[in-house]
Order: sequence, then C-alpha cells, then structure tokens
Amino acid sequence: MRDRVRIVLVETSHPGNIGAAARAMKNMDLDELWLVAPKSFPDVEATARASGAQDILESARVVESLDEAIAGCAVVAGTSARLRRLAWPEITPRECATLIRELPGDVSTAIIFGREKTGLTNDEMDRCSHMLSIPANPEYSSLNLAAAVQIVGYELFDSKASRKSVEEPESPPATADELERYYAHLESVMVEIGFLNPDNPRHLMRRIRRLHNRAGLDQNEVNILRGILTAVQKKWS
Amino acid sequence: MRDRVRIVLVETSHPGNIGAAARAMKNMDLDELWLVAPKSFPDVEATARASGAQDILESARVVESLDEAIAGCAVVAGTSARLRRLAWPEITPRECATLIRELPGDVSTAIIFGREKTGLTNDEMDRCSHMLSIPANPEYSSLNLAAAVQIVGYELFDSKASRKSVEEPESPPATADELERYYAHLESVMVEIGFLNPDNPRHLMRRIRRLHNRAGLDQNEVNILRGILTAVQKKWS
Repeated sequence: MRDRVRIVLVETSHPGNIGAAARAMKNMDLDELWLVAPKSFPDVEATARASGAQDILESARVVESLDEAIAGCAVVAGTSARLRRLAWPEITPRECATLIRELPGDVSTAIIFGREKTGLTNDEMDRCSHMLSIPANPEYSSLNLAAAVQIVGYELFDSKASRKSVEEPESPPATADELERYYAHLESVMVEIGFLNPDNPRHLMRRIRRLHNRAGLDQNEVNILRGILTAVQKKWS
Repeated sequence: MRDRVRIVLVETSHPGNIGAAARAMKNMDLDELWLVAPKSFPDVEATARASGAQDILESARVVESLDEAIAGCAVVAGTSARLRRLAWPEITPRECATLIRELPGDVSTAIIFGREKTGLTNDEMDRCSHMLSIPANPEYSSLNLAAAVQIVGYELFDSKASRKSVEEPESPPATADELERYYAHLESVMVEIGFLNPDNPRHLMRRIRRLHNRAGLDQNEVNILRGILTAVQKKWS
C-alpha cells in the first residue's frame, strides 16, 4: 500500500532539482510528485538526475496553481528556512511524519517545497496547515531542494515502521479546500460587519488562520463554524 | 565548538557530488571534509554545487588512502546500501548520532561514504567499527552521495542537543476566566442569531470549547475573537 503523501514543488527553477527530488522520493518509497508551474519540465537534466526514478517523473502531475496541488489534502505542510515575523506553528520533519502516520490511511496529505531562492510566499504559507522547519545550521540554513525532500522523505519512511493503529476520529479532518472556503466565508462576514478593512485584510486573517490551524479542525467543526457565519448573515438580511 | 566528525568521501567520481556534500555538511554544521583520492578536485562543478559552502571545500583534506583519513578516529562508521554476505553490526543514522554524542568531546570520529557506483570495498569495510545503513526503499535503496551525507548530517545535528528552543509567545496564554467570558459572549451571540437552542446549548458548546481548547488561545487572539462578536452585535443594534 502506497503512501498518500504528495510532494509538491512550487515553481522550481532548475530541472535538475526536480530529478534529484524524484530520486530522493523513490529512495524513500514516495511516489506522488506534483509540480506547480515548473520552469522547465520535462527536461533532459531532470531525467539525468532522477537516475533510476524515471517512473516518478513520468507520473508527476503538472498543475498551474498550488490550490490544485493541495485540493483534498487534510495536512498541508509548507517547508521554510525563513524566520517569519508572525510565527506559524512550526513542526520538525519527525513531528510531521508522526502527524501524518496518525491520520487514517486514506487521507491525502501534502508537503510543499518552495522556490530555490525565495521559498514560499506568505500567500502560499497561508494555505498551509503546518510549517515544517528542518533543523539546520542557523548560519547556513538553506538546504538544496532535493536535500530537503530527502530529509522529509527519510522521516516519513522511518516512521512507517512504527506506525500505530489509531482510533477512528469522529469526523474526518477538514481538507485544504474546505478550510479555504471557511476562511473566505469568515473574511466576507468580517468585512460585512466592518471588522476587517477589505483593503488590508492580510495581517488579521493570518492570525485567524493560525489559531484555526493549531486546532486542526475536522469536517463537522468546519460545518458548525460555517453554520454560525450563515446564521449571522441571515440575521440582518 | 565544532564537531569532531569527519565526513570521508572515498574515490568520488563526480565532483558535483563533492560540492553538494559540502553544502549538506555546512547546512548541518559539519566542517571536516576528507577526500580520499577524488577523481577530480578542486573542480568547477564542485564549486558550483557547493553554493555557499565554498569554505568547506577550501579546507577539505585530500589524501591518498582511507587509513590516512581515519587515523586517530574512535568511531569509524562505513555507509552502505548493499547487503553483505557477512553481516557487519548495522546501525541506523540515528543510532550512529547517539553513539557519537555519547563520546567525550575531544574524540575524533569518521563517517565514510563510498564510490557512487560500487560503495566501499570489503577491505575498506574491514577498517570500520560500525556499518551505517540508511533506511530506504528496498527496491531502490541507493541514495545519491550528497543525499546520504545530508541524512547522516541531519541526525548528527538533530542529536546535538535536546534543544527545544521554545520561542517566546507574542502574547500570554489566555486565562481560564478570559476564556469563560469569551465562551459566554459567543454563546449569547449564537442564541441571538438563532443558531443555538438556549434550552439545550450544552452539546454544541462543548464541541466549540473543545476545538478552541485544542488551539490554546492567547490573550490577543481572545481579544480578536471577542472583537468580532461585538462587531456582529453592533451590526443589528
């Protein structure tokens, strides 16, 4: 049985890194590669660096937006070496692997790796349920893209052996797209009630996303919260 | 204080791998690179792949024999993906890191990485005190050289301290009474909008408390949430 862990590479510049990431994935028994707007793919350099992992490249999904790549995923972990002003809940690769292992086996998850030079944008980080930070030398913390995939894959592979059977949750975890719809709904209510400046909603919405992410909402809970928002809107309609 | 862990690469064929290994080392705060009879070094390809880790390449020691590279080392761990007829005592990268951490700080150790295609010879394995085996897909277990260095370095770095660097929270955690006031406020709004049956609010409120509890709200966040509730109430007053 294969993992349902997507490795998502966002706007990768160097096709060689895509190939090396594919090899790292195959080493660690991962096979779902998603490429968001890669600069060049397929590419002879990707093929060369993939070594014996050509099959991963051949089955890679190329999409235009991050949202497509994470649709349906319950855990969306964004990797970043950058320190943020507003701290996301940070987890290590090992914690991330444990988190994923404890989900029911049919739940899709995604781990996102940003651009080589600039990583993920704040907008992209907003779509992540978790921020995954690889422990590294603070004076030189930027790993090669495939090296980061290698470490995360290694922890996922390593945790497989110690997989525990987990009790079924009452409701499946909310997926990335369900959460996005909830945040959009909440944001529109906040604008309607004059609590949010529609020209500059970012900072406050980011705080609100963060506290929700920490909770790890399930689908029932998202339905309850959206029900409250709908009732609020009906109140003055 | 620097580690006394030597990373020893034996007869590396591709200079690019030496550069990528140097980068992986620097990411993981290792700085002793030993090269046993590299095919080409220094080399422009090594420099390119080293990225910001040029200093590791510049201080690398190039020697003719493995014995020179491991002289004075108390632990000598040879990495191998190959199964051996005669099983060496195998340790994982994590066990190797623990082993090294438990030595006195002034003891030198070495981790040896063999040729890209053929790994280490049996003669070279004979010189090792331990055989280090990286957990990997049994059907595709051969890692790129720098990827193997990356994983071993990652475990060494991770084991350096049980450093749970806890970031300062931006705002103190909300107190029980602040939370109670928030829940009471939320409950009254839910009754006003007709979402909650005031005669039997218990079950739904319990779910809502539970999801908030999981988030571990801080005082700022409670203030934001109560601000939203107040704005909702003003909307129809």
